[in-house]
Amino acid sequence: MQLTILGCGGALPAYGRYPSAQILNTNECSILIDCGEGAQMKMQQYKVKQNRIHHVCISHMHGDHYFGLVGFINSQGLLGRTQTLNIYAPAKLKEIIALQTEWKLPFEIIYHDLLENKYAVLFENEKLKIEAFPVEHSVPTHGFKFTKKVKLRSLLPNKLREYEIPKYFYSKLADGEDYERQDGTIIKNELVTIEGKGNKSYAYCSDTRYTESIIPYIKNVNLLYHEATYLHELAERAHERHHSTTTEAASIAKLAQVDQLIIGHYSSKYKTLEGFKEEATIVFNNVLLAEEDLVVNI
Amino acid sequence: MQLTILGCGGALPAYGRYPSAQILNTNECSILIDCGEGAQMKMQQYKVKQNRIHHVCISHMHGDHYFGLVGFINSQGLLGRTQTLNIYAPAKLKEIIALQTEWKLPFEIIYHDLLENKYAVLFENEKLKIEAFPVEHSVPTHGFKFTKKVKLRSLLPNKLREYEIPKYFYSKLADGEDYERQDGTIIKNELVTIEGKGNKSYAYCSDTRYTESIIPYIKNVNLLYHEATYLHELAERAHERHHSTTTEAASIAKLAQVDQLIIGHYSSKYKTLEGFKEEATIVFNNVLLAEEDLVVNI
Repeated sequence: MQLTILGCGGALPAYGRYPSAQILNTNECSILIDCGEGAQMKMQQYKVKQNRIHHVCISHMHGDHYFGLVGFINSQGLLGRTQTLNIYAPAKLKEIIALQTEWKLPFEIIYHDLLENKYAVLFENEKLKIEAFPVEHSVPTHGFKFTKKVKLRSLLPNKLREYEIPKYFYSKLADGEDYERQDGTIIKNELVTIEGKGNKSYAYCSDTRYTESIIPYIKNVNLLYHEATYLHELAERAHERHHSTTTEAASIAKLAQVDQLIIGHYSSKYKTLEGFKEEATIVFNNVLLAEEDLVVNI
Repeated sequence: MQLTILGCGGALPAYGRYPSAQILNTNECSILIDCGEGAQMKMQQYKVKQNRIHHVCISHMHGDHYFGLVGFINSQGLLGRTQTLNIYAPAKLKEIIALQTEWKLPFEIIYHDLLENKYAVLFENEKLKIEAFPVEHSVPTHGFKFTKKVKLRSLLPNKLREYEIPKYFYSKLADGEDYERQDGTIIKNELVTIEGKGNKSYAYCSDTRYTESIIPYIKNVNLLYHEATYLHELAERAHERHHSTTTEAASIAKLAQVDQLIIGHYSSKYKTLEGFKEEATIVFNNVLLAEEDLVVNI
């Protein structure tokens, strides 16, 4: 999977930082995670293939997380998109989009309502799973977990031919099974496969106050995005405003034993991000700073 | 007056061109003319003083002309704006903004509905006049004319003192009157004033098909913005889609005998603007191309 940051700013755009929006690219499709104002322009700038976006996850109904969606949808319509778009969001978003797209779009939108305080599997097929879980903010807000499912074993094409394994059995080999020929000979799985790469997972938590209630949902993910609106000297303000600090984001990463942490959603009070990485790194040793056009391979 | 282009693109953002938005700065206040997505970021980038914006004119309800307004309004609220904001727009905009600003804004918004196919004086005081007039597009659309009123005569402070003119008479001097002393002596206006600079006017026509019906409203303005979505080889497409070409915009400028023409709202099909200025200049000899961050003194 590959994550592209389209916007890393907080509620107010500032110092060139656009509001929250990200693209998660899996082999199969792309997922748009939050869609602040200007996201479609950033997608153009960063050459994101917009018709590959099949899923849109909107964390909550603060404008800096969704004001760009109506523009994206209308532009997709003007461009003649035909692929269905799945939108996972609080129920109210439907009404807002409908009011501003009264012409007949050439593609279908399927809305999936996020229910307050509820965990849900939003989508699952054999390659991808999307889950939503509650975080703690001033309005109902969800975090998301994206899992790219990778088979247990990777097939070795040369060996498959050498041992004359029939194609119908390939997926069972990928699941770790041995193959038994009609004459009873067993072809051990290790002869024709190697160890697979395992699942890859990404979790997105923004906006949220520090809360350990999210740990079970994000445990052991490869990459965690956790908002860090403030440096830790403003921990009290962060708590009051239902946001987090650098140190708090890093503490969550540590407790959840994730591989890597990426922080963002910086307050407009900060002209530069001096101190953000340093503070987080004291608590957790693998920290990235979100910034526009950053691409992270997961 | 000073015009700043925030966005000069057409329906689809393309090649770095943002959707329609402009700032007209008068001495007294600023006016936001259309507000496509991303306008608030461009205002930051170009250091526009957002709390000086007292009037917002929205030409019509196509997203590329208003999707940025809800973001601007919410940000102004977060920044603690207290000044009233006047919005002149089709009635539906009220509902769209209300649905997305459910928190209590710290400033008042006064909506003034634009009525389909009607001319109206939207605002007038002794320094500024704003008028709306119908143009010809696929949905009800208005053009706008902005007049900065300048007095007929400019006062000469030294001469006013020399001839001991009382202050209460200054505005009459500016209107060209002579002053009569109590003893009957006449102080001729020319002794204490020089010729004033005259009114300055700007007209905005976007989006519109070529229509000479707008000429009476924009006659003799100092600067005319007229959309030119296409080069003239696509005149047929322009007509079908209720847009104009370079040549058509220039023909309107010529018929209206304006001082200067500025064209914009370029289709996303054009990677560069090669040919736009050349084509328009064949018909009308004082043409500017709108581009982001262009500032025009009127």
